[in-house]
Amino acid sequence: MTVTNKARDRNDVVVLHGIEDLRAEVRAVPDPGAAEVLIEIRSVGICGSDVHYFEHGRIGDFVVESPLVLGHESSGVIVEVGDGVARERVGERVALEPGVPCGHCGQCRAGRYNLCPDVRFHATPPIDGTFARFVAIDAEFAHRIPDEVTFDVGALIEPLSVGIWANRKAGTAPGDRVLVTGAGPIGVLCALVAVASGASDVAITDINADRLRQALDLGIPRSIVGGDDAGLAGFAPTVLIDATGVEPVVAAGILALAPAGRAVLVGMGARPLQSLPVARIQARELTVTGTFRYANTYPAAIALAASGRLPLERIVGARVPIADAEAALRMGHTHPEVLKTIVVVSEDGESHAAR
Amino acid sequence: MTVTNKARDRNDVVVLHGIEDLRAEVRAVPDPGAAEVLIEIRSVGICGSDVHYFEHGRIGDFVVESPLVLGHESSGVIVEVGDGVARERVGERVALEPGVPCGHCGQCRAGRYNLCPDVRFHATPPIDGTFARFVAIDAEFAHRIPDEVTFDVGALIEPLSVGIWANRKAGTAPGDRVLVTGAGPIGVLCALVAVASGASDVAITDINADRLRQALDLGIPRSIVGGDDAGLAGFAPTVLIDATGVEPVVAAGILALAPAGRAVLVGMGARPLQSLPVARIQARELTVTGTFRYANTYPAAIALAASGRLPLERIVGARVPIADAEAALRMGHTHPEVLKTIVVVSEDGESHAAR
Amino acid sequence: MTVTNKARDRNDVVVLHGIEDLRAEVRAVPDPGAAEVLIEIRSVGICGSDVHYFEHGRIGDFVVESPLVLGHESSGVIVEVGDGVARERVGERVALEPGVPCGHCGQCRAGRYNLCPDVRFHATPPIDGTFARFVAIDAEFAHRIPDEVTFDVGALIEPLSVGIWANRKAGTAPGDRVLVTGAGPIGVLCALVAVASGASDVAITDINADRLRQALDLGIPRSIVGGDDAGLAGFAPTVLIDATGVEPVVAAGILALAPAGRAVLVGMGARPLQSLPVARIQARELTVTGTFRYANTYPAAIALAASGRLPLERIVGARVPIADAEAALRMGHTHPEVLKTIVVVSEDGESHAAR
Amino acid sequence: MTVTNKARDRNDVVVLHGIEDLRAEVRAVPDPGAAEVLIEIRSVGICGSDVHYFEHGRIGDFVVESPLVLGHESSGVIVEVGDGVARERVGERVALEPGVPCGHCGQCRAGRYNLCPDVRFHATPPIDGTFARFVAIDAEFAHRIPDEVTFDVGALIEPLSVGIWANRKAGTAPGDRVLVTGAGPIGVLCALVAVASGASDVAITDINADRLRQALDLGIPRSIVGGDDAGLAGFAPTVLIDATGVEPVVAAGILALAPAGRAVLVGMGARPLQSLPVARIQARELTVTGTFRYANTYPAAIALAASGRLPLERIVGARVPIADAEAALRMGHTHPEVLKTIVVVSEDGESHAAR
Repeated sequence: MTVTNKARDRNDVVVLHGIEDLRAEVRAVPDPGAAEVLIEIRSVGICGSDVHYFEHGRIGDFVVESPLVLGHESSGVIVEVGDGVARERVGERVALEPGVPCGHCGQCRAGRYNLCPDVRFHATPPIDGTFARFVAIDAEFAHRIPDEVTFDVGALIEPLSVGIWANRKAGTAPGDRVLVTGAGPIGVLCALVAVASGASDVAITDINADRLRQALDLGIPRSIVGGDDAGLAGFAPTVLIDATGVEPVVAAGILALAPAGRAVLVGMGARPLQSLPVARIQARELTVTGTFRYANTYPAAIALAASGRLPLERIVGARVPIADAEAALRMGHTHPEVLKTIVVVSEDGESHAAR
Repeated sequence: MTVTNKARDRNDVVVLHGIEDLRAEVRAVPDPGAAEVLIEIRSVGICGSDVHYFEHGRIGDFVVESPLVLGHESSGVIVEVGDGVARERVGERVALEPGVPCGHCGQCRAGRYNLCPDVRFHATPPIDGTFARFVAIDAEFAHRIPDEVTFDVGALIEPLSVGIWANRKAGTAPGDRVLVTGAGPIGVLCALVAVASGASDVAITDINADRLRQALDLGIPRSIVGGDDAGLAGFAPTVLIDATGVEPVVAAGILALAPAGRAVLVGMGARPLQSLPVARIQARELTVTGTFRYANTYPAAIALAASGRLPLERIVGARVPIADAEAALRMGHTHPEVLKTIVVVSEDGESHAAR
Repeated sequence: MTVTNKARDRNDVVVLHGIEDLRAEVRAVPDPGAAEVLIEIRSVGICGSDVHYFEHGRIGDFVVESPLVLGHESSGVIVEVGDGVARERVGERVALEPGVPCGHCGQCRAGRYNLCPDVRFHATPPIDGTFARFVAIDAEFAHRIPDEVTFDVGALIEPLSVGIWANRKAGTAPGDRVLVTGAGPIGVLCALVAVASGASDVAITDINADRLRQALDLGIPRSIVGGDDAGLAGFAPTVLIDATGVEPVVAAGILALAPAGRAVLVGMGARPLQSLPVARIQARELTVTGTFRYANTYPAAIALAASGRLPLERIVGARVPIADAEAALRMGHTHPEVLKTIVVVSEDGESHAAR
Repeated sequence: MTVTNKARDRNDVVVLHGIEDLRAEVRAVPDPGAAEVLIEIRSVGICGSDVHYFEHGRIGDFVVESPLVLGHESSGVIVEVGDGVARERVGERVALEPGVPCGHCGQCRAGRYNLCPDVRFHATPPIDGTFARFVAIDAEFAHRIPDEVTFDVGALIEPLSVGIWANRKAGTAPGDRVLVTGAGPIGVLCALVAVASGASDVAITDINADRLRQALDLGIPRSIVGGDDAGLAGFAPTVLIDATGVEPVVAAGILALAPAGRAVLVGMGARPLQSLPVARIQARELTVTGTFRYANTYPAAIALAASGRLPLERIVGARVPIADAEAALRMGHTHPEVLKTIVVVSEDGESHAAR
């Protein structure tokens, strides 16, 4: 194994300076702290939040006020370790968990580190993301991926974690009928995790028939166009996972739930959700919760990816070199049929850290 | 012990024939089925639902279409048992759990018998309630009360069950800060159960300062007039139990919840609740659920009542003989300071079933 | 559809009169009660308990004191319904849940109907089982199986329920590493359910290498011969499901568990288990529980069977006509490689109740 | 407020050099790290583990190989803060949570920081304890106590945490009947927390009638001498908390549990527990777990102490100046009636850090 001499290297990054203003820049390669590792990034998935920052410069209260490196769905290779980290980890292929919490506050101590008020999360202002050749991160948040997990799939571990977290909140298990509303990448991953968790039946809805066809191709048992009320009620789900954030969709999903059903609201729409069918929540003793990122999901997601039971490779619809990052961010408009776009930061061949 | 000869007796009942049309009638004393007991009723608490049927003839989809006996918060004495019930139970003082489920459907088998679609619940059309001298009920739903629990408190076991169920849904335990919105009888009982469950702190809100004073007198640690936002946020509850059903009150309560907080919606207001601060539910991973009656709470409620730790006797603000049932139903208007009115159907002295 | 005229029929049953004393007899066809259905039995799986009663006349405190019809893993076709059951159910293919609880006691009301003290369970003295042409059972405990579930697999729903219950108790989900000790039919089914529930990894141990080979063939990812301590510790399971009831096996499994691991003890050995590594349970805060049959598992088991994700057909190693029931009960000795033997009571062709 | 000038001060400590070899020494006052606070210790409770180290030089695998400062149940006043800690905390009265975990390992991230393999726990070799004038500790583990909590009670927050953790594991709530075996300080605190958590009934057993009398005096509703089997079975607990670690006591307790009961094993006896009635665990689907210290309990314990609902002051049977630390460690022999002995390290009057 050849370890890169990163000291001689330069850190190529892609930085968002303002709305639709993306620039390639060269920065210093970071020195990993004692508990950190330095990673040469391979693949970075494009998330809706990256696109939103690119197009609008903000997401709700998170505003891009100074230049920001985008990207938080990432994989790579450890090329250097801090003093407190085992040297054997150099060369390890990893998926990066993008949010590093403080480790000491009340939320962290309770195991809810995703709710840590001091979490530093990639590509959430003012923390830079992973559209970068090199990134330093806490060693515990660089999770080893086995050989059978490609770097592209390694980047998908992040949205897959969202799907695992949603199903964990729902308690999906054999016996559940799971309804997922929204057949974008998050909805599809939530549905695939539900199938892999033994759900008795899984249905996905969308207004876009192409997306539903794609979802069926990927192995989701049922699809319901447009979230048709009659179809939903006949399905009588015990679990609803919403990946749209659209009010009438969420309402129809909740109204379809069986008594004691559980709803997990993952999606955030253009306008904040405000209305829920509360009388039904009471009369049927439904439980409604939402997710904010995830905690303690990476090992589960990596194992699920490694099991080969999910068609994760097929979720990647396009691979774009980082030099064309802007094209990657516009893919939703130019190629709406692409479920997930991967930005290729480096490949094994061209790598300074070949295995 | 003298057992009444109910065959020689008549069953005096009070029947709602229409809006504000309450009539005293004589009916046949029911024969208990094989698994039932016949109870001579002692005390019946007035619930908001009784008043609502009296004033409006309906509650949502439940419409009084034929004459209905009101009352479902009841205690009494077993005076006769069916063939399948131990004869020793004659003379037993009991609290009546008013909803008898089918025992065989999916909800019943799952232990959620309050959600049984075939439940027969006292004073919910078309099932008659307990404004009656004699009532027959499944023996398992006539729960023995010990001597230290008076018949009036026996009637309070029903609303106390609502409070236990709300706290059970919330998982109230030492470490929780519980906010109860609404200081009517249900809110007060929810708050008292929270205190008795070891909650680290309990606050109650209302727009009525008299009610709050009364709540403080009853042992609830804190009160916040009007659900003032600043006061709520400073309290940072981990649990919200709403007993108002009023939209801005619920919203303010949810916005005050600490991360990972749990909201339990008990109250049903004049208009159905529709709006919830969903973005906050997502960002803080709050859990929201509602309650529909209760299940498996009576033994816990009776034990709590018997422990003497709750000032249940002091919640009873008025005792009205059944002959004045109408006055009892109007008590909310004539004596708004009365938290709970008890309709006295019979007393031990005048009883046909003295102990 | 032709419904059998069961009145003209005779009920052929196979009865255990004493140790190794099995006799064919003719009995009256039972009349279904109002809430019951009459079922023409198709397939009955042989369970270890049937063999044990046949060979020893007892299992612990359950003693065969009068003639007993064996068999409790059963499927069949509804041929008649009681007055309270929808007539459309005649002709329905069903799996029989063999334990019908009282529906009213404290355990039943809490949803733990498997712990009902008055449960009537097939082939547990003195309740007759299903080695019989016709059996009447509560309609709610005759669960519809879809066409893609054969009658043999319909009989397997019972032991599959054991596997679902064990995993439900364990809370198996993505992220878990599950160790199953014992590769008999129950162990294999527990392991297969763990895989289907999304477990990150599943290993099974046995002292019999043939059984392990068979388990691997059926799709269980890993096997460990003899429960070798080093192998177990390297696996670091988060969940142990024991299907042996053998003390050193259970102890080694518990010692292998990761901190906060959960152990579910399903197996019952020849001698009662007495010793557990309690110091480890404390130091690692492990949770240990056991299972007694199951509750609310049939719909989940049927859906899992119908999904085609489990190789249930291949678990059936022998099919024996009921006329040779004794040979079926001796199969463990004559053909130890057979994981599950099915007693064929009737086939569709010869059926009096063809679909 | 006068803040001590600790630089001019000396750190008086009491050190265990070997079995029954306790020596007063002077050490340097530690400098608090950036995230730490320096505390002037007030009260330290004597725990059985301190006595065990004093008498035997070890507890299981934990061996006193070099001089060790004992004491881990502590309160005091913050007299200095590290750079990362708010200066306003100087002067704050605190209870010290004695185990500081790493904050980054898998157990910590899952919220189970008590199982952190790198936890540094006071008075557990080789980490020094709090028989010392000054101790530095992570600021998050110095928990503010309100004025109504005395320093002695502040020291009791540690064993009270054990009681809260045991009841949290048990899920004690209204409706539970809790049996606590062993009426030493831990058993008594477990029982008092059960009462404060709303348990329907709480019984405590011991072979020592004096201890039971004391327990009743402290407000525990029932006592059963010697854990008499008949008495236990009549009580039919839903929860067992064992504070003895004695095999027949634990076995009798488990056999008494109602179906679906939960056992929490807190006590560690002279010999490791090995035998449990496993057949009963299976037949009744009991759950057995153990506790190892506690996590996230201090805020709950402090709130409970501040509520005045527990007679914590009366649990303190003796107060001994640190100069007589050896006498304090022998108190169990000389004054067996004393439930808890407090070593007084400093008092407010003589304090260098008066409030």
